[in-house]
Amino acid sequence: MTITQIYLQDNFLLENPLSFDDIKPRLLGHWGTCPGINFVYANLNYLIKKHKIDMLFVLGPGHGFPGLQANLFLEGTLQKYYKEATVDEKGLAYISKNFSWPYGFPSHSNPGTPGVILEGGELGYSLSTAYGSVLDNPDLISACLVGDGEAETGPMAGSWHLNKLIDPKNDGAVLPILHVNGYKISGPTIFGRMTNRELKSLFYGYGYAPIIVEGHSDKVYKKMVDVLEKAHQSIRATQEKARSGKDGAVPRWPMIILKTPKGWTGIKSLHGEKIEGNCLSHQVVGTSAKTSKVELKAVEKWMRSYKFNEIFDKNSGLAKDILDIIPEDEYKMGQNKHAFGAFSYKPLLLPDIKSLAINFDIANPGTVFASSMKKVGRCLKEIFDLNKENKNFRLMSPDETYSNKLDEVFTSTKRVFALPLKKWDKDLSSSGRVMEMLSEHNLQGLAQGYILTGRHAIFASYEAFVQIVSSMADQYAKFLKHMREIHWRGEVASLNYILTSPGWRQDHNGFSHQNPGFISNMLEKHGCFVHVYFPSDANSALAVLEKCLKSKNEINIIAAGKTDEPQWLTLDQAQKELEKGLSVWDFASDENPDIVISAVGDYLVKEALSAIDILRKIVPEIRIRFVNIIELTAAGFSEGECKVPFMDFEKYFTKDKPVIFNFYGYPETFKQVLFGEKNQERFLVHGYTESGSTTTPFDMQLRNNTSRWHLVIEALGLMGERGLVSADKAEKLMAQYKDKIIKHKDYIIKYGVDPEEITNWQWQKNF
Amino acid sequence: MTITQIYLQDNFLLENPLSFDDIKPRLLGHWGTCPGINFVYANLNYLIKKHKIDMLFVLGPGHGFPGLQANLFLEGTLQKYYKEATVDEKGLAYISKNFSWPYGFPSHSNPGTPGVILEGGELGYSLSTAYGSVLDNPDLISACLVGDGEAETGPMAGSWHLNKLIDPKNDGAVLPILHVNGYKISGPTIFGRMTNRELKSLFYGYGYAPIIVEGHSDKVYKKMVDVLEKAHQSIRATQEKARSGKDGAVPRWPMIILKTPKGWTGIKSLHGEKIEGNCLSHQVVGTSAKTSKVELKAVEKWMRSYKFNEIFDKNSGLAKDILDIIPEDEYKMGQNKHAFGAFSYKPLLLPDIKSLAINFDIANPGTVFASSMKKVGRCLKEIFDLNKENKNFRLMSPDETYSNKLDEVFTSTKRVFALPLKKWDKDLSSSGRVMEMLSEHNLQGLAQGYILTGRHAIFASYEAFVQIVSSMADQYAKFLKHMREIHWRGEVASLNYILTSPGWRQDHNGFSHQNPGFISNMLEKHGCFVHVYFPSDANSALAVLEKCLKSKNEINIIAAGKTDEPQWLTLDQAQKELEKGLSVWDFASDENPDIVISAVGDYLVKEALSAIDILRKIVPEIRIRFVNIIELTAAGFSEGECKVPFMDFEKYFTKDKPVIFNFYGYPETFKQVLFGEKNQERFLVHGYTESGSTTTPFDMQLRNNTSRWHLVIEALGLMGERGLVSADKAEKLMAQYKDKIIKHKDYIIKYGVDPEEITNWQWQKNF
Repeated sequence: MTITQIYLQDNFLLENPLSFDDIKPRLLGHWGTCPGINFVYANLNYLIKKHKIDMLFVLGPGHGFPGLQANLFLEGTLQKYYKEATVDEKGLAYISKNFSWPYGFPSHSNPGTPGVILEGGELGYSLSTAYGSVLDNPDLISACLVGDGEAETGPMAGSWHLNKLIDPKNDGAVLPILHVNGYKISGPTIFGRMTNRELKSLFYGYGYAPIIVEGHSDKVYKKMVDVLEKAHQSIRATQEKARSGKDGAVPRWPMIILKTPKGWTGIKSLHGEKIEGNCLSHQVVGTSAKTSKVELKAVEKWMRSYKFNEIFDKNSGLAKDILDIIPEDEYKMGQNKHAFGAFSYKPLLLPDIKSLAINFDIANPGTVFASSMKKVGRCLKEIFDLNKENKNFRLMSPDETYSNKLDEVFTSTKRVFALPLKKWDKDLSSSGRVMEMLSEHNLQGLAQGYILTGRHAIFASYEAFVQIVSSMADQYAKFLKHMREIHWRGEVASLNYILTSPGWRQDHNGFSHQNPGFISNMLEKHGCFVHVYFPSDANSALAVLEKCLKSKNEINIIAAGKTDEPQWLTLDQAQKELEKGLSVWDFASDENPDIVISAVGDYLVKEALSAIDILRKIVPEIRIRFVNIIELTAAGFSEGECKVPFMDFEKYFTKDKPVIFNFYGYPETFKQVLFGEKNQERFLVHGYTESGSTTTPFDMQLRNNTSRWHLVIEALGLMGERGLVSADKAEKLMAQYKDKIIKHKDYIIKYGVDPEEITNWQWQKNF
Repeated sequence: MTITQIYLQDNFLLENPLSFDDIKPRLLGHWGTCPGINFVYANLNYLIKKHKIDMLFVLGPGHGFPGLQANLFLEGTLQKYYKEATVDEKGLAYISKNFSWPYGFPSHSNPGTPGVILEGGELGYSLSTAYGSVLDNPDLISACLVGDGEAETGPMAGSWHLNKLIDPKNDGAVLPILHVNGYKISGPTIFGRMTNRELKSLFYGYGYAPIIVEGHSDKVYKKMVDVLEKAHQSIRATQEKARSGKDGAVPRWPMIILKTPKGWTGIKSLHGEKIEGNCLSHQVVGTSAKTSKVELKAVEKWMRSYKFNEIFDKNSGLAKDILDIIPEDEYKMGQNKHAFGAFSYKPLLLPDIKSLAINFDIANPGTVFASSMKKVGRCLKEIFDLNKENKNFRLMSPDETYSNKLDEVFTSTKRVFALPLKKWDKDLSSSGRVMEMLSEHNLQGLAQGYILTGRHAIFASYEAFVQIVSSMADQYAKFLKHMREIHWRGEVASLNYILTSPGWRQDHNGFSHQNPGFISNMLEKHGCFVHVYFPSDANSALAVLEKCLKSKNEINIIAAGKTDEPQWLTLDQAQKELEKGLSVWDFASDENPDIVISAVGDYLVKEALSAIDILRKIVPEIRIRFVNIIELTAAGFSEGECKVPFMDFEKYFTKDKPVIFNFYGYPETFKQVLFGEKNQERFLVHGYTESGSTTTPFDMQLRNNTSRWHLVIEALGLMGERGLVSADKAEKLMAQYKDKIIKHKDYIIKYGVDPEEITNWQWQKNF
């Protein structure tokens, strides 16, 4: 079954001698890891059937897809989603022919596979995803098959520690099965050559009770049955102890180290080279089977060795002893309800954000100060309160909940920590709902596993360090993109990121803590489901947060600072702006402008408005419009099939007036958004240009040419060129502001802080 | 010293009672980890002095910079690079005042710090960098201080396994010191709450001989001296055994687990809260010391507790017992020669690439086929041969040397593997120069450590999975950007990436194996030192490779496929093209073109030329120019201070003719490059739009609209609009090619492969 998918386009039951015509023209697939997958899957089925276990299967080596798909076919799961995959000769032909075939089944496990919650390409994320799936699912056991190649990756090595964030009382359990078949594509694995003592020692050190199952004789079958039984008992014992209130000790969860040969039961040797138990069994064995008689014969002999005709009959179907170990539908791993997040999805109960809004005199914007993150923290606290019963919300944060000023959540819940606590520890508990660990990889994996099993999560991070998971986020975006096309997948909550402590305010930590690259990266994803929001103040942050938490099947990024900053919009205004993605701010705009100044993101908005404030005073003769942009989608301004915010570019940015953009991230990212707009010479784009390290907040703006003074100088230059300000006046004023820039450096070198002129700036109501 | 940097702007020797005026206006810095750093640094100095050890210090928690800088100051290293940092009162004032001060010293360790080879912000990469530094430096010991926060990261968790890639015969040793102070910013660390048995078990499992040094009484000083002595002896014993030929056993290197309280020797408690031995000592303790009398007093008492006047006198300087443990200059860790890569840098000996070039009849381009990667592999093999004596070249590859068709290197060297070998293992040896491990993070760290200590490395990866290290590459780019401004750093080799097995040929692995995001990411880096090359054929690949390996202080990315593809340029032509970054290909171009077709990257070039081939036949009346782009820099086409390839945009792309670009990566990335060019409506950009999974190679082009047929349709449309082809004819022809696109799908669903019309296409010499 597994191998018919890799090799055959005909003669699937081997009713005739195998011929070249039966072999696919391109042989694509991975054999070596499959026998282990089949072995584990069958043994888990036996266990499930015996104990009626609610079990999910997370497959790390997604290239072992032929193995997984064979099992899903045999257990009858596949035909529920692919009607042609009936458990008979025709179905067998269908899945074999269509495996790794254009417009057929991909070669790796993927969202089109029932029961799968992990993109099957990039390795290293299976265990953290499995851990995410069992949070708040007390009866669930997620069996996670980790490959020994995958085990070499950093993210996997770090994720073994996630046992310390599991609460045996309220969470389910992960049963990790490290499959050591000893080889990668072209050589031995590290885990394959470590001693058994080292393996056991390593996983004891990680906090597990490791059990080794080893061999390739018949004994290994018996051993695996026993070990799984023991592991299951151990899991249930730990849970019962915790749930009956008799806990106290740190749980020691079982994990299994399964050592079986790579390409087990396959071709032993070919052309004098060792195949089984060697890396040469990794992909297709006998790549020339379509043209070489020797290889064709070897493949045929191998296929016939399974005596498939004894377990499958054309007329009567599968043999009874196979059918006997297949669990009832409800318990089939391919049909585990948790893997279909849409079924357990419940909308998050949200507070009335009006009650949280900052109210100020609408005639006096920019005079009240607040922190977007403190407000978000308050809102998250209320969400934790409201959803206490539903237990379907988690906050992921790499040791930064306090630092990101979201700590009001701790008045509702705690950080989970299963290791011993000290009396001076704060906001920690064995059953908290905030996941803190200094591993962005782990948190991303937890979030993915939690969301794809129907729950809600927010990942809050320092802006710079979320880039650590950019590749994971890419893979998740792929999963989502594919999943959105599969009707039976339904909808799950969006993955919402909060990117705060941004580079603009890393004046204390310096250059290493600046990086808006994640925004750039996500804005290149194709499709309509990636949104980046740049709330300009706390009310906007609330409006955005609510929108994101209500949305489904998307990736949303909220980029905003944590410091106290001026408040510009009422909640009502913010919500209205959010509908379009941008708006003209009337309080800072003239009719029929000579120039448009536009900004994206809180600190940049402040500089832009300060610049307008200055320009109003020094060149009252010019007419200015301010456009705030709160949302960018992957589709940018004006193309793609999605609802895009910039429906009417010229309505906001005029036909021909100069526009100065002050952008939160790399200017290049914004430039790509402007592609194709006419009359490009009128656009000037400022943004983060990687300047400035440990310095003052305003100096960060100065060094990146995004400061109010830079915008003033630029606007003066443009207005001078166009004759709207006399050349003489423009020049004189520009010189003044250039001088200010130089003097500012002297000032901060002397005093270490920005002058009050800057820090106390407030928007003036009347001009 | 450590704390004067964090707190004081005056009264550095505490000659007067501490006053509010003495305290800096903004208190920025991290205290908690510093005492451990000081403790380790002093103890290592003692060991170095005793044994005259060639030792480099790699500091993981770069936020502990006040501790490191204090030591560099005291040992007199700092004043060699910062002349005002004299070891006297004035120097003390200078470094204290300037720490974490605008335009002074950053708050984290950084390239401006002598002896530092690691950007000090993002955590997790210290150990892999340290391992990179000791390769081929047999006498060097790199002491690597790993924080227990950092230890939670995936990359760090994976890097402990790098002991398996160390050859005791030819490499030096890393001495990891895991500093368990028990706390992160706002809570306990995982390692701080694991049992000692678990800690020892974990690191035994990783293959080390762990030794725990614990406590905060005086005994811990004595213990550390003894343990370091023992560890040193153990390292030397392992090395001597291997070097005298008595090896055989897998080495078990020592590592130290140092458990001392966070904020050790600092303020015990403040406002009733535990500070020492708690997370509250992480950053500044007493943040209101400038305004609160209570806090000021506490800080003063703390500062005076060190009796700094007993170890430092205004007139006579440092006390003798401090001076006694400071090693001679040659042995000071801050002056370790390896940390100044420029001093040990030797240019790589390169083969005459002419001897490797593919020669073909220049009148017949596109008729000879070759694999760029096989050619690169051949060249790398020769480089290994040529530099056998110098031992200064390594290839990093995550288990993909074979898969990327670079395996000819194995005729010169092997993959290093320190674990036991089996008789069927191939191309593995305890002393190979190819580093294979399924961890991109580890390889990136190794490459950084190796290069910054003056050697050469290439990192070859599947294009999609290099994105895993995008954040590491960002941090390295930051290090480089800053380092390039520091004159005493000098120049080291560039970090050269080969990105192959690109998404365009992941027709077998599918969607999960496609991702050109790394290219996009690196093209946003600001500065002149990031180049992305897209060689169109094997000769171009050779020319690019040579250029990259000769360059210094840069990051170069070579993006090219591994399959056999048509060859377009002679080596000479390729080298000439490389000078400008682009060229018009005369053999495919007419004078005074009506339309320009331009491509970036091998597979896209092939489609573009095929389109031209078709257009020539079906609409011979239109005049076409083909422009190949081989290089993009971070500065794009036309801005920035760097030499940019596109000096004269209109010379290549005309003033007003339509230009169709066929780009290797995301079209958005190319769009940002076109920003500001006039008359944008004439540009049409094609590229990877995330379409296509497991399918045929040509279908990947079709699904991303980059195929020859799509380009033909688009060109016909444009020419029709402009009246250069009759509307009727254009329409009819376009319909034909649209039909071909539809029929192709049916064909591949039926046969599983592209039709011969596509796979056998060759450029026709004459029209």
